[in-house]
Amino acid sequence: MAVGLHDFPRIPEIKGVRIGVAEAGIKKPNKKDVVIFELCEGASVAGVFTKNAFCAAPVRICQQNLTTTASRYLLINTGNANAGTGKSGITTALATCESLASKVGVDAAAILPFSTGVIGEPLPVDKIIAAIPAALDNLSADNWHSAGIGIMTTDTLPKGSVRSFDFEGRTYTIAGISKGAGMIRPNMATMLGYVCSDIAMEVDLLQQILKDVVNQSFNRITIDSDTSTNDSCIAVATGMAGNDKVTSMEDPLAQAFIATFTEVMQELAHAIVRDGEGATKFVTVEVAGAIEQGDATKVAFEIAHSPLVKTALFASDPNWGRILAVVGRAGVDNLDVDRVQLHINGFEIARDGGRSPDYLEEHGKQAMAPQEIHIVVDLGMGQATDTVWTTDFSHEYVTINAEYRT
Amino acid sequence: MAVGLHDFPRIPEIKGVRIGVAEAGIKKPNKKDVVIFELCEGASVAGVFTKNAFCAAPVRICQQNLTTTASRYLLINTGNANAGTGKSGITTALATCESLASKVGVDAAAILPFSTGVIGEPLPVDKIIAAIPAALDNLSADNWHSAGIGIMTTDTLPKGSVRSFDFEGRTYTIAGISKGAGMIRPNMATMLGYVCSDIAMEVDLLQQILKDVVNQSFNRITIDSDTSTNDSCIAVATGMAGNDKVTSMEDPLAQAFIATFTEVMQELAHAIVRDGEGATKFVTVEVAGAIEQGDATKVAFEIAHSPLVKTALFASDPNWGRILAVVGRAGVDNLDVDRVQLHINGFEIARDGGRSPDYLEEHGKQAMAPQEIHIVVDLGMGQATDTVWTTDFSHEYVTINAEYRT
Repeated sequence: MAVGLHDFPRIPEIKGVRIGVAEAGIKKPNKKDVVIFELCEGASVAGVFTKNAFCAAPVRICQQNLTTTASRYLLINTGNANAGTGKSGITTALATCESLASKVGVDAAAILPFSTGVIGEPLPVDKIIAAIPAALDNLSADNWHSAGIGIMTTDTLPKGSVRSFDFEGRTYTIAGISKGAGMIRPNMATMLGYVCSDIAMEVDLLQQILKDVVNQSFNRITIDSDTSTNDSCIAVATGMAGNDKVTSMEDPLAQAFIATFTEVMQELAHAIVRDGEGATKFVTVEVAGAIEQGDATKVAFEIAHSPLVKTALFASDPNWGRILAVVGRAGVDNLDVDRVQLHINGFEIARDGGRSPDYLEEHGKQAMAPQEIHIVVDLGMGQATDTVWTTDFSHEYVTINAEYRT
Repeated sequence: MAVGLHDFPRIPEIKGVRIGVAEAGIKKPNKKDVVIFELCEGASVAGVFTKNAFCAAPVRICQQNLTTTASRYLLINTGNANAGTGKSGITTALATCESLASKVGVDAAAILPFSTGVIGEPLPVDKIIAAIPAALDNLSADNWHSAGIGIMTTDTLPKGSVRSFDFEGRTYTIAGISKGAGMIRPNMATMLGYVCSDIAMEVDLLQQILKDVVNQSFNRITIDSDTSTNDSCIAVATGMAGNDKVTSMEDPLAQAFIATFTEVMQELAHAIVRDGEGATKFVTVEVAGAIEQGDATKVAFEIAHSPLVKTALFASDPNWGRILAVVGRAGVDNLDVDRVQLHINGFEIARDGGRSPDYLEEHGKQAMAPQEIHIVVDLGMGQATDTVWTTDFSHEYVTINAEYRT
């Protein structure tokens, strides 16, 4: 039921990156459930991770390894999240890293492990280790599509994005994949996003840029308000494009990179929403006229999380009173409801605390009919704005999540 | 689909209270959609109301009238919430109060108006005014059941509670009705609760007791996290029992009253949850071991609001990892996940940050099978606790809310 999600793009070689996939048989048969990224020596690797205190074992290991050792491999499995697994979760994740490290001759701390799937079950470490040789044999610069499929769980389609930009005679490419369709309310990143570029960039700068751009992309989407235990987003700069290493945010090349990187990251984030569990709508919630951005963010997320708003969106029902009710309960200090305005897909719905004088039910129906819905709430208080992307709430969502484990 | 909701009780006369119902034809045919409470002169009346900034016009009028004039009548309509109606909402609500006031010979400020139903549509003021004479003709001490039915919207059953207690040779009775099944996450009270007693009690004390007890009853339930624009809870002490007016919290009679009043208020609040839209489970979420009660409250509500937890409850699926994931994202400072314990219906599910050593999937299935589910999370940090009551999330919820207006 993905909403307006385009086909997986043709992703060219990103020099310095090879990808291999293999079948470990973790949860579903005939599923390539192990994915390995091989990164060239000297690549800069940055990562952001969930802020959930019950974060998964691999998240803890990634956070530590990134601070100690240059990363050379990403080792990803689906079908098991290795979260809520206590101390043995760490042991099993480390065992997979050590197995891969010994086969490729790097330090185990040069491996970043990632898991996604059911929470609370022991990681089937033997199955994963057994699949590593096949994934290594499969390494190729041309495996982005397979990797996109490999990291899927309840996703219905693989999600990829690629952009190039030219700067002073050189062409740079940025490509990425993402997954996720439920338990999506990223708080730092989403499970899982991997974006690679051939640009040469100092790792601290890449980390800063990743953190900033995540806040305009993955950290602004929500499907069901449930922040995952495994959210991870990784950015890689292989340095193979041949430029002098970018070291400063003021470098014009950094700015050019950020612009294109943001496009890729937003496309990947939006792809997760478009393929949200049970989604029939792609909804942009824009809140303007706040005094502080934090207020705009809060109101936008409250609207995006409201089960009543989401079920009305599912029904294409212009039950806009539910949106105003959320604005009223969102906790904005000194909100003057008489100044609030609401537009949906360009139609003015409410103003002065009530229905617009020109509003007709027919307008509401027209506004709510399309698959793509753009809600704009103006609080009428200040200049700050923020935007969040979400989905509706359908029977299919209940079905998927009531039957996920069975 | 109400869960374990008992039949409406036989409520005896509460001296000083008469109730009348009538059919105004606001939204549905053959529905007594106007209810009037007549209160004796000298009755103490206290009220708590929604904190939603988009609160309905009648809520604003109630708040004002309670501060200026002794209330003599409650005028309630269903089918239209008179919320999101701007300034004209106030005008129409006042018009209904004035009409009733002129017919019964009291000041219009002695009327408390209440509305519930669709948000954002103009109040059909003429229909309500036309129904007032019939409701007055119907006034009787024996109409509690009719009133319980009269205030229903998406409720499937009327909700009532009655208790008596003896104190120093006198018997006191407390009776109440409530309604609500969706847009339920009360923040001060729920739409709508009316509780009357024959006790004589000073109005400020009654207000304080109402506020305290609401925090252990209506303010601890949630169905879908959406705080209504119309939440209102009214307590009436008619004084007809003949006691000397209670004026202090230290009075032993006040303490006896609070104990029984709390039972009535909790029964009415639980009744709303048991009849929650699409509910198939009645779920008690108890969080213990917090350093501050606010943390326990926050974690309990986050669990109660999680769509993933609620859909797992609907499926009777022991997908307890989702509960731990919510605990982890709830924002408790310095949470040590290795000290968290989880019990469901008496079964130890998780400890030390992971699955209990003795846990079997069979235990989880047994724990989740009943209609009544008791979740206990121990944070292992301190002594503070709180409890919240909620429901699961079913297909029926989506159906009800996707079709509510049509």
